[in-house]
Amino acid sequence: MEKKSESDKPIGIFDSGVGGLTVLKEIAARLPEEDIIYLGDTARVPYGIKSPETVIKFSQQNARFLLEKGIKMLVAACNTSSAVSLPALREETGIPVIGVIEPGARAAVRSTKTGKIGVIGTEATIKSMAYEKAIKGARGQGAKLEVITKSCPLFVPLAEEGWIENPVAEMTVEIYLKDLRDKGVDTLVLGCTHYPLLKNTIQRFMGNGVLLIDSAEETAKDIESLLKENDLLLKGKLSIKNFYVSDNPERFSKVGRVFLGENGLGRLSTVDLSRY
Amino acid sequence: MEKKSESDKPIGIFDSGVGGLTVLKEIAARLPEEDIIYLGDTARVPYGIKSPETVIKFSQQNARFLLEKGIKMLVAACNTSSAVSLPALREETGIPVIGVIEPGARAAVRSTKTGKIGVIGTEATIKSMAYEKAIKGARGQGAKLEVITKSCPLFVPLAEEGWIENPVAEMTVEIYLKDLRDKGVDTLVLGCTHYPLLKNTIQRFMGNGVLLIDSAEETAKDIESLLKENDLLLKGKLSIKNFYVSDNPERFSKVGRVFLGENGLGRLSTVDLSRY
Repeated sequence: MEKKSESDKPIGIFDSGVGGLTVLKEIAARLPEEDIIYLGDTARVPYGIKSPETVIKFSQQNARFLLEKGIKMLVAACNTSSAVSLPALREETGIPVIGVIEPGARAAVRSTKTGKIGVIGTEATIKSMAYEKAIKGARGQGAKLEVITKSCPLFVPLAEEGWIENPVAEMTVEIYLKDLRDKGVDTLVLGCTHYPLLKNTIQRFMGNGVLLIDSAEETAKDIESLLKENDLLLKGKLSIKNFYVSDNPERFSKVGRVFLGENGLGRLSTVDLSRY
Repeated sequence: MEKKSESDKPIGIFDSGVGGLTVLKEIAARLPEEDIIYLGDTARVPYGIKSPETVIKFSQQNARFLLEKGIKMLVAACNTSSAVSLPALREETGIPVIGVIEPGARAAVRSTKTGKIGVIGTEATIKSMAYEKAIKGARGQGAKLEVITKSCPLFVPLAEEGWIENPVAEMTVEIYLKDLRDKGVDTLVLGCTHYPLLKNTIQRFMGNGVLLIDSAEETAKDIESLLKENDLLLKGKLSIKNFYVSDNPERFSKVGRVFLGENGLGRLSTVDLSRY
């Protein structure tokens, strides 16, 4: 078998479930020639209500599975995993590892004018304070900014149910975000890969003066830069996308269509991650 | 060490998380002298969106852990697990195994006058058709009854968030249950251990003419009968309750208080279930 050059290898993306498809979609739009392997840990979804130790263990198993497939870059397309497991993943892999928190935090620092940034995410992400650390640690004015955070546990089930613009979604958005709006944030980081599905409803409630930061877009830009820097960009071929889940492929396909549209999903297989 | 007699042993209860505490509460009220070991699989919660194969595998691991503790009876206090894994659990254990579906189904058959029974539960429970089978298979008029089912995926996250009587809960109840109400069911089975938390809101929407069946109460009655039949009732001592979770004991304690009240939880430990 011919040995693949590094740049020919696929990008590996994992998420706790379908949420990371928002990141895949942005990568595919920006880098249409790259092969991608996507892994959704649907047997153990969601990660947002679990402890850091458990999220790290699950993330390591996901990474090992993808490494075995021969990837050139690992993307943790899950805010909860990015918040707690990047150091462990970097220690384990010899390839570039990228999360979704740093890119979103940097974009928020660039965008704010009032100096008040809101961050919403799962319980685990908010509790980790990863966004505060990334924003305060950003170059320039980071240290002087005010960061106001709020966990929104019902946004993930609402997005998965497809209730993204109905009255239940509107009222839930109001309850969770009223305080952030009243405090006058001018930038709001959507710190969970599911939240972009609720973007319209969130934007309507927060008002047009507030900029919503979608980590998926920012992460895709970072991936492109990192591939260029490491001379790993793939050019001039048709891309292949393979999907793996740890459970319930039917549900993944169904919910995946909410994220990617009717023809979005490629080949889908099931894998037992507890072996990794 | 003195050998324990069978009746001295504790009852083992498992659930995917905190939901089974509604069953524990009813057992403790009815059988205050029984020792109980409760296991919540919080590392892999929820089960309701997972495949039958995965739910069976997780349930078997839960059962093995409890069997190792020396229990006299196994209670699957989770509708999703009861819907798909009882045959596998009975094959694996030499002790009585009881689920929450049969007791609820029997109570519904006894109660209905119009012959129209509604059943609500998780996606996995509804898809399994376990309630239809249990109702149709019940003695007496079972076969002639009409069963109308509806999965309500947002009820579990709403209950865990403690949003059980607010406007979001009310609107969600209306969207999910309107069809069942319009079709004139006179009995509604709350086919998920979380749903009794939403009982008031559901009752208000369905009207006082509709009887809500809480599997927890019915299951506790069945457990008492089964212990009597097998001469396993424990008498004349103070009961001990031990709690185990596979992840995030802090969150379990916090949400557990919504179910059991401030002083409800006993000793709580964490266990790695993937070893079983």
